Amino acid sequence: MESAIKTVVGQFVSSARGKESLNKDSFQKLVQRQLGNIMADTDSSSSVKEMMQGLDENHDGKVGFQEYLTLIGYLANSLSESKTKTQTATN
Amino acid sequence: MESAIKTVVGQFVSSARGKESLNKDSFQKLVQRQLGNIMADTDSSSSVKEMMQGLDENHDGKVGFQEYLTLIGYLANSLSESKTKTQTATN
Repeated sequence: MESAIKTVVGQFVSSARGKESLNKDSFQKLVQRQLGNIMADTDSSSSVKEMMQGLDENHDGKVGFQEYLTLIGYLANSLSESKTKTQTATN
Repeated sequence: MESAIKTVVGQFVSSARGKESLNKDSFQKLVQRQLGNIMADTDSSSSVKEMMQGLDENHDGKVGFQEYLTLIGYLANSLSESKTKTQTATN
């Protein structure tokens, strides 16, 4: 699990390319390449923009690390709910 | 990265063994076995208890999924800070 957490952190760090936040382009690349299978509409530029605005708590037009963790938490929640449902269905 | 998020979710689900939260024993096992290299004092029962109380926002004596995600976010932040420091040091 430690490597999983490191992967989540490393993905942000490498996508941000030395900066503190992801701009629209780097955020779009990240979700397209890394989260395309568990998120909807990652190929749509307008959807990704909306997603980004939803995460951008401090309204600086970028996705900072905390805002990125919000997305990861949201995805973890979605996956957790679907897992629990599957478990209930098969138990 | 998708598998990393799934690992984080799956670890909670398997540790909780069908329940919605981790009790003290299952939380201790999880941090000892899965996070011993990136967290301090995971072998100390009293430290793990303190850690658990720190996470237990709703004071039910257990660690729910949101509370677990708080821990993951906290660890991700620590790793991110040390990564940024390393980058700054080597650049």
